[in-house]
Amino acid sequence: MSDFTLHCFAESGNAYKAALMLELCGADWQAKGIGFFKGETRGADYRALNVMGEAPVLVHHRAEGDFTLSQSGAILIYLARHFQKFGHETEAEEFEILRWVLFDNHKLTSYTATERFMRHFRGKAGDPTAEFIYARAKDAWNVLETHLRGRDWVAADRPTIADLSLCGYLYWPEQIGADWSDYPAIDRWLQRLKELPGWQAPEALMPSGQ
Amino acid sequence: MSDFTLHCFAESGNAYKAALMLELCGADWQAKGIGFFKGETRGADYRALNVMGEAPVLVHHRAEGDFTLSQSGAILIYLARHFQKFGHETEAEEFEILRWVLFDNHKLTSYTATERFMRHFRGKAGDPTAEFIYARAKDAWNVLETHLRGRDWVAADRPTIADLSLCGYLYWPEQIGADWSDYPAIDRWLQRLKELPGWQAPEALMPSGQ
Repeated sequence: MSDFTLHCFAESGNAYKAALMLELCGADWQAKGIGFFKGETRGADYRALNVMGEAPVLVHHRAEGDFTLSQSGAILIYLARHFQKFGHETEAEEFEILRWVLFDNHKLTSYTATERFMRHFRGKAGDPTAEFIYARAKDAWNVLETHLRGRDWVAADRPTIADLSLCGYLYWPEQIGADWSDYPAIDRWLQRLKELPGWQAPEALMPSGQ
Repeated sequence: MSDFTLHCFAESGNAYKAALMLELCGADWQAKGIGFFKGETRGADYRALNVMGEAPVLVHHRAEGDFTLSQSGAILIYLARHFQKFGHETEAEEFEILRWVLFDNHKLTSYTATERFMRHFRGKAGDPTAEFIYARAKDAWNVLETHLRGRDWVAADRPTIADLSLCGYLYWPEQIGADWSDYPAIDRWLQRLKELPGWQAPEALMPSGQ
């Protein structure tokens, strides 16, 4: 058995954050596909695994027993500590990473993932609700763009889990309605991340949830 | 000077999370009001304090210099460590707390705060976008309700910062369109929190942002 099992599917940017981290850390891990588009995360079996009903869920197969964890941000922090990679070196860095992981969850991913779902998977681009959420996603991209001007990485002088969290949905520019040439600092930062040894696209790491 | 300054305003549930924590910890703190409804968080001065443009911001006046932190979840974790209160005792608890703080930011507060803003401050209840976001907020309340059945507290056998994070917007049932009698486990849990020594309502802790 692998050291880690990740319950995931390729269309989930939240799952991608964890999958990319595992891959960049050289972890011994396996992807267990979730039939998201068949409603699997709404079923009782999945809710027993994760009451929040979301992907990803990480299971760490430890000698003393399995440790199960949901929420990509919590998974990233757990893995950074386990592998001693992409984490903080000082307390100031620790909280800088944490606040960007939280901003990602609260503002950037939450709106980006929802407007992508409506736009790309439900064909609702232009619908007033989709537009409302799209405007909020763009507000969050602008905050990130402003922050990245003159910086290579989000929270330190090297890539950290804050970068891995924030990039989760951003390699699908057409699906989320982004033209990164309008956001040059984000564009260069996504390229920089892509050049990290071991980087792979979501579809190369996880099975489809279709 | 107080030990802590919290940039905040009474209408912000995110600011309330930090204010309530400071109060329950018996901190020496002062509230510095933000004129949110006058657009202050969108101004250059505020963006210099917090590029994310959000409340709250905590400043800890330390001997070695001020430490400034945004994002309520990061602030709660910082204060739990500083005061050794409402934090974890084991690694399993640490990650259970963390995943609920993230769930709160990602799903519960993000939708609840937005639909409250539209409903209460903009009079848009019934608008399709407000209804869409309201439905998502209720999904998150249902997850919390399910989780709290048979539990007194969210992440441990005692109150932790996970409880303080999740309750941020929930003491305004009319403003968010909630009838807690439909969510009896949440109802009892909110009552339990209210009975903690030092508990106060948002308006008693912070000045209005109007």
